[in-house]
Amino acid sequence: MIIVMERNATKENIQAVIDILVEHGFRAILHEGDVHNVIDALGDKTTLSPDRLEAMEGVNHVKLIRQPYRLASRDRKPEDTVIEFDNGVKIGGANRPVFMIGPCSVEDDYEGLLEVAFAGKELGCQFLRGGAFKPRTSPYDFDGLGEKALKYLAKAKEETGLLVVTELMDSSDMDLVCEYADVIQIGARNMQNFRLLKSVGKCNKPIILKRGPANTIKEFLLAAEHIMYSGNERVILCERGIKGFDSTFTRNVLDIAAVPVIKKYSHLPVIVDPSHGTGQRYLIEPMAKAGLVAGADGVMVEVHHNPAKALSDGKQSLSIPQFREVFTRLNNLVDTLHLERATVCSQVE
Amino acid sequence: MIIVMERNATKENIQAVIDILVEHGFRAILHEGDVHNVIDALGDKTTLSPDRLEAMEGVNHVKLIRQPYRLASRDRKPEDTVIEFDNGVKIGGANRPVFMIGPCSVEDDYEGLLEVAFAGKELGCQFLRGGAFKPRTSPYDFDGLGEKALKYLAKAKEETGLLVVTELMDSSDMDLVCEYADVIQIGARNMQNFRLLKSVGKCNKPIILKRGPANTIKEFLLAAEHIMYSGNERVILCERGIKGFDSTFTRNVLDIAAVPVIKKYSHLPVIVDPSHGTGQRYLIEPMAKAGLVAGADGVMVEVHHNPAKALSDGKQSLSIPQFREVFTRLNNLVDTLHLERATVCSQVE
Amino acid sequence: MIIVMERNATKENIQAVIDILVEHGFRAILHEGDVHNVIDALGDKTTLSPDRLEAMEGVNHVKLIRQPYRLASRDRKPEDTVIEFDNGVKIGGANRPVFMIGPCSVEDDYEGLLEVAFAGKELGCQFLRGGAFKPRTSPYDFDGLGEKALKYLAKAKEETGLLVVTELMDSSDMDLVCEYADVIQIGARNMQNFRLLKSVGKCNKPIILKRGPANTIKEFLLAAEHIMYSGNERVILCERGIKGFDSTFTRNVLDIAAVPVIKKYSHLPVIVDPSHGTGQRYLIEPMAKAGLVAGADGVMVEVHHNPAKALSDGKQSLSIPQFREVFTRLNNLVDTLHLERATVCSQVE
Amino acid sequence: MIIVMERNATKENIQAVIDILVEHGFRAILHEGDVHNVIDALGDKTTLSPDRLEAMEGVNHVKLIRQPYRLASRDRKPEDTVIEFDNGVKIGGANRPVFMIGPCSVEDDYEGLLEVAFAGKELGCQFLRGGAFKPRTSPYDFDGLGEKALKYLAKAKEETGLLVVTELMDSSDMDLVCEYADVIQIGARNMQNFRLLKSVGKCNKPIILKRGPANTIKEFLLAAEHIMYSGNERVILCERGIKGFDSTFTRNVLDIAAVPVIKKYSHLPVIVDPSHGTGQRYLIEPMAKAGLVAGADGVMVEVHHNPAKALSDGKQSLSIPQFREVFTRLNNLVDTLHLERATVCSQVE
Repeated sequence: MIIVMERNATKENIQAVIDILVEHGFRAILHEGDVHNVIDALGDKTTLSPDRLEAMEGVNHVKLIRQPYRLASRDRKPEDTVIEFDNGVKIGGANRPVFMIGPCSVEDDYEGLLEVAFAGKELGCQFLRGGAFKPRTSPYDFDGLGEKALKYLAKAKEETGLLVVTELMDSSDMDLVCEYADVIQIGARNMQNFRLLKSVGKCNKPIILKRGPANTIKEFLLAAEHIMYSGNERVILCERGIKGFDSTFTRNVLDIAAVPVIKKYSHLPVIVDPSHGTGQRYLIEPMAKAGLVAGADGVMVEVHHNPAKALSDGKQSLSIPQFREVFTRLNNLVDTLHLERATVCSQVE
Repeated sequence: MIIVMERNATKENIQAVIDILVEHGFRAILHEGDVHNVIDALGDKTTLSPDRLEAMEGVNHVKLIRQPYRLASRDRKPEDTVIEFDNGVKIGGANRPVFMIGPCSVEDDYEGLLEVAFAGKELGCQFLRGGAFKPRTSPYDFDGLGEKALKYLAKAKEETGLLVVTELMDSSDMDLVCEYADVIQIGARNMQNFRLLKSVGKCNKPIILKRGPANTIKEFLLAAEHIMYSGNERVILCERGIKGFDSTFTRNVLDIAAVPVIKKYSHLPVIVDPSHGTGQRYLIEPMAKAGLVAGADGVMVEVHHNPAKALSDGKQSLSIPQFREVFTRLNNLVDTLHLERATVCSQVE
Repeated sequence: MIIVMERNATKENIQAVIDILVEHGFRAILHEGDVHNVIDALGDKTTLSPDRLEAMEGVNHVKLIRQPYRLASRDRKPEDTVIEFDNGVKIGGANRPVFMIGPCSVEDDYEGLLEVAFAGKELGCQFLRGGAFKPRTSPYDFDGLGEKALKYLAKAKEETGLLVVTELMDSSDMDLVCEYADVIQIGARNMQNFRLLKSVGKCNKPIILKRGPANTIKEFLLAAEHIMYSGNERVILCERGIKGFDSTFTRNVLDIAAVPVIKKYSHLPVIVDPSHGTGQRYLIEPMAKAGLVAGADGVMVEVHHNPAKALSDGKQSLSIPQFREVFTRLNNLVDTLHLERATVCSQVE
Repeated sequence: MIIVMERNATKENIQAVIDILVEHGFRAILHEGDVHNVIDALGDKTTLSPDRLEAMEGVNHVKLIRQPYRLASRDRKPEDTVIEFDNGVKIGGANRPVFMIGPCSVEDDYEGLLEVAFAGKELGCQFLRGGAFKPRTSPYDFDGLGEKALKYLAKAKEETGLLVVTELMDSSDMDLVCEYADVIQIGARNMQNFRLLKSVGKCNKPIILKRGPANTIKEFLLAAEHIMYSGNERVILCERGIKGFDSTFTRNVLDIAAVPVIKKYSHLPVIVDPSHGTGQRYLIEPMAKAGLVAGADGVMVEVHHNPAKALSDGKQSLSIPQFREVFTRLNNLVDTLHLERATVCSQVE
């Protein structure tokens, strides 16, 4: 840590900072500048929070050298994390990017869900996604079928072999959701619901953690850190669009650069969600491609057998014929480019 | 609703939209334009979500005329909501703005907490705030004393008469928190934790709902709507800073204009939190004043008996001597201006 | 236009709005709602600005149906604009994406510039870019060599055949810059320097207009409209990153979705600049690829013969060996995918 | 400066950084950490740009200790700058906050302008503002009367004694504008039009520099630095709203905290513009008050004799009767509070 003192900090202020540093086992080195005095602190930050130093009199601010996440960091684990499922599907590392598809919410029409699942199976998708519990901005909107939806997903899995991804909104549903899901999703609005992160840190399923729309990459990695620190290291990060100043044409700004940035600083797999990331059906294809060439380990896309009748997010869902067209081209892109991690990663450091 | 069609929408597309509108009891009026055709739909939106219309082929977008919140809206209830406590304290309407003060987290040093509470009492504050359960960005940070903290708060209440405000992070703690708190706070990161909103909608304590750092005012009012719709209409809205592009000098951008904007569109009381809103001790006073003259019904400020030793947010906490100085001036401002709602509200519409 | 009245608007307010509409040749239709009254106005908005209506008493807001840009809009010109140069190079439509490369600023070392230009020539680049006049945030930074730089660029053009792109900062330099440049660049910070836009609207060179870091797509297209309205329809739009809330890892957020969005609403060519868009050398390759698969008509990249000695933006420049590696892969991507506009555009509407 | 090296930086990378530092007269101290090596560099940054260091191999990033602005900084000039006019009006320091009022654009109706000016005079305003050259997002909007408007302003000054503020958009108009204006305004969209900043740095009138809607406070102070460095130290900073993610209710987010932040780091006077800062008439009063209690040295407000007929920004302009009401209350606030700088400034550091 580097502690920058106020220009009018007194000798006593400086000494107080040095004292607390020494007390916590740091080596403290004072550099006297023309305007600001600066203290270098070498030691283990876990024993003394920078927040405490920043609250001391005469301290202007504290600069950190190391990132505050550890388990999620490449500094600790240089090789890519690969998450493997019982049926042999793998996410991360040099593996072929995976596809996760399905409706925003699972609805009453099971046949429709199955139709989507079979189309997905045929197009080489590995995961069926669908919401049983839906976070909705307005209390007047449809918020999911609950356990019935989970049963539908499990049945569709039985028939197609696709792995099931579904969202957990509250720790009280964890046992229920774990019973049916192969991957548990934490939604963007819950990215900093720390109790929920702790809960899923204790379950034995991989977690898809969606980036909060106004969360920095550091906060995103720290949210993963919460899950990992509670015991579950199988975390898949999902970029799904950040809040921008222009919502005329897109719901969010899909931050494609987040993919290679996270890959540089963390070993965890990263996927992109162009449906929520843009909110527009016609942007799914170009943005899925953009994510893939930028190094994503997978793509999550909303597909509905009848978007115009979807109870949620129809506008950003592909119909089944559109899905076939788009994913044929995505498969081509992946095939042609031999899009394996090794070549996707930017080789220029 | 107004449905704007794509420039290349077919007659069939238009007819399909009109059909679904009519089916749901709307009156539909088609205006043929040079480029876009536009359909006016007059009827009750609760029966047909604009999302479904937006997902239909040939629809460019749907414009809403009325805001989607109802219970929170001034359209429904033109007079200000006033929330009253057993001891006679009132928030909202023409009442004197209230002060809520206390440490970010309640810590092991009960004497310190009591010292803050007594100083608050003396300065005319009505509420003691303090965290028992703390959301923390990093898993390595102190996250609260839990029930012990609640007991300390209750004890301090007994000694000073201050009402207790504390945060609820998870529905599973609701009974526990309700036992000790007079007001339950929902933190900014949980503003869209809809399960939690539903839960507190069923409790009989007033709720302070903090605005999420990247949430629009509409989303904020819809979150209040969730609580109200679940049965609890005693909601206090708290502006606590939004995410900006410049975090060099302040942690967030305290959106002072949100106060008069919300006052115009909703009847609920609004308070401001300049501690979280800026993250800087020296900004608490000017920003508290700014909130008050803009019409806030109260101010929430972090005060710690020894900020340099605070386990969280020391940097944005006032020490007790600073607290005395600042709140003496805030009281003066409130007194001198006879700062009652009637005169604070902007009279120019 | 649709005029939404305040809930407490009087009959006189409504009549006044209708009168002004009729006076300007609009057809006005009043819909009386439960809460708000709404007036549909059919007619030519050029004769009556929505701003005037919004300023009238009792008006809550005005909603527009059509976008305010016209010359730049696909509504007016459905086919892609293709910009052609004397040497046969073409930008836009179904043409192969172009590459524009070169140092941020042209510096005193002409040999270095030439080395970059020859490497570019060899890798199939069509344009040499380099700043003669540089906007710099701090007055203490290097701000360009002026005419000397222009002469260097012209000399490098003579030797390599690459077309020259350089920035114009002030209308007073226009004749000078036009003498040497094949394409004139308007920098992001000048995107709403309307006098400058008017000036280049009168010159006979194609213009690269960079998107301002906080400008919406609508403002971007309106800035192009300024140039086109002044007489120059050869405008190339350049997405170069928007301001986000997280500048820890990247300077800006490169808004890849802006490419397909603009393609949908405008006929103008669009390129991306991953150097400024990210500020990080290691992100140039993945983000250039992302832009290309999303439909960009070209890529602009900073290349310097010795980034560590560059007087500006060295951190985001490729060295010549890195440039060779990255552009070999970019060329492969373009070749393999037969990346022509027709197939790049998202076919799902 | 502190140079943080990549975790995989080689000894040669480190040595190269140290060599360049030493070559430029810096003292370099290497701290070897567990993960990152860090180099402290003590010396004069004007001789070696951090950009160059960041572009070197093995460098992760460079942290600065001192702010890059100098002339604008309180480190250099601890006492407040006070700008004085021939007629005795003063801005800054402990002086009473000033009021600048007038229409967005000066229009053809001179009598209307005069009516506003006389009302302003009567209410204790010191400045008449009005645009002669107007930046307009769309080329189809009214962009000012040019010299005719300047003449009208001069005439109104003659009749009322109010000082004239008007915007300069292009250096080619500088002589003309200087002839008529007492204060030259640089608009928000031109905040980083560095040529224009240089030009006004050479004129002998005080400058109002408006903050760009997406510019950080550091960029704002560096823009002031450009003017000061070119020779004109009489710069007044104007906060006029920054771009936010929510434009439903307000055009911009008026960043009230910017006032006390700038006051802490710079000696220059700061004013606020609630008209542009919110875009809503009903928000002018609360936000003007908020700015004043937060320490602003003045307020700029749009007033029009007939907002519904204004050619620009009518929606955010006060009519003359509203102006009287609002400014009577603003004057009361200022009077009652003896709102002089000394007491406004937050006294808690």
